[in-house]
Amino acid sequence: MELNLPEELPESCCSSEERKSHQSEKVKNNLTTRLNPIEGQIRGVKGLIERDTYCDDVLTQLSAIQSALNSVGKILLEGHLKSCVLERIQEGDEEVLDEFLVTVKKLMK
Amino acid sequence: MELNLPEELPESCCSSEERKSHQSEKVKNNLTTRLNPIEGQIRGVKGLIERDTYCDDVLTQLSAIQSALNSVGKILLEGHLKSCVLERIQEGDEEVLDEFLVTVKKLMK
Amino acid sequence: MELNLPEELPESCCSSEERKSHQSEKVKNNLTTRLNPIEGQIRGVKGLIERDTYCDDVLTQLSAIQSALNSVGKILLEGHLKSCVLERIQEGDEEVLDEFLVTVKKLMK
Amino acid sequence: MELNLPEELPESCCSSEERKSHQSEKVKNNLTTRLNPIEGQIRGVKGLIERDTYCDDVLTQLSAIQSALNSVGKILLEGHLKSCVLERIQEGDEEVLDEFLVTVKKLMK
Repeated sequence: MELNLPEELPESCCSSEERKSHQSEKVKNNLTTRLNPIEGQIRGVKGLIERDTYCDDVLTQLSAIQSALNSVGKILLEGHLKSCVLERIQEGDEEVLDEFLVTVKKLMK
Repeated sequence: MELNLPEELPESCCSSEERKSHQSEKVKNNLTTRLNPIEGQIRGVKGLIERDTYCDDVLTQLSAIQSALNSVGKILLEGHLKSCVLERIQEGDEEVLDEFLVTVKKLMK
Repeated sequence: MELNLPEELPESCCSSEERKSHQSEKVKNNLTTRLNPIEGQIRGVKGLIERDTYCDDVLTQLSAIQSALNSVGKILLEGHLKSCVLERIQEGDEEVLDEFLVTVKKLMK
Repeated sequence: MELNLPEELPESCCSSEERKSHQSEKVKNNLTTRLNPIEGQIRGVKGLIERDTYCDDVLTQLSAIQSALNSVGKILLEGHLKSCVLERIQEGDEEVLDEFLVTVKKLMK
């Protein structure tokens, strides 16, 4: 699943050419602080499998990773709603609603 | 995806002292092949956040990672059910049912 | 599924006293048309259990009901975002964002 | 979503002709006791929509119904694993494992 994102991102924020996020450094640090251990846990699960660890223990680790990722998703969603989505609505750009709904539905059960 | 059970099981397998998994090399490789890009994507998401990539794009990546992890979980669950759980039931050790249910419930909606 | 927003909004809509929804009749009919068979299926599942129907078949029905309810939730969420949430943002009432997030998070994995 | 189940179910339990559940009356009562209010809540949600109740409140009800259905699913899954699945494994009929996995995967995230 290759990450197909634009190589480099121009300066202008939330303009139609190239939308950028403008999460605060505090939110960005919070997200990175959460993603670092998740990356480590994925590596850890690979090690567990390599060492024939009892599957039940591996599945428990996997479930913990999924919960941690859910938390990251919720922080991102909140930050997105309260910055870009809010601003685009205030600028009269209601297209953001359908874009936002598509993403929320992916994260729903 | 044909899950072939281990040809022969070492004596100490699934004994109470220290339970070990005995997934086939084929299953183990399948799992690692899936986990490698997931690890890379987690790193990728950190980079996206660092570069202020539009949150909607980051959320879409996150959702793809969660789906990939779900697939890993399903492969592990299947392998576990068809090896350790099956064997312990056949050996009359029905405690494995409660253990298995606890894990399945963590993975359920 | 084209969600058309209400033609005209009664004065008291979304005021703080008692918030009301103003989904169009078309959306309301769509939701009711979906909820009717769900109600019947719940009754049906009770009957299956009463008649000792094989659990696997009952679980399959239950899963179908959950999917149908998810669809209802997504229609409601969309209608809510495109009416009350949008209006309250446009009226400068950003408290709706936190309220909306609490609800979305309940529906997320 | 029509319930496509066999009209009438013959006596023999878990035989290949027509599988039947043999949950205890206690489990069956527990399930019915949980399904009754769910049926009422679905009717309730229809009424809320009819009366233009604020969508956020309706979504909260819907989320509660989904949680209640999840609990019913987990009780059914446990009962099924500890009766039919266990028996069929003990009778050497390992086909039940794939059948069980298909159902579990439908209930997973």
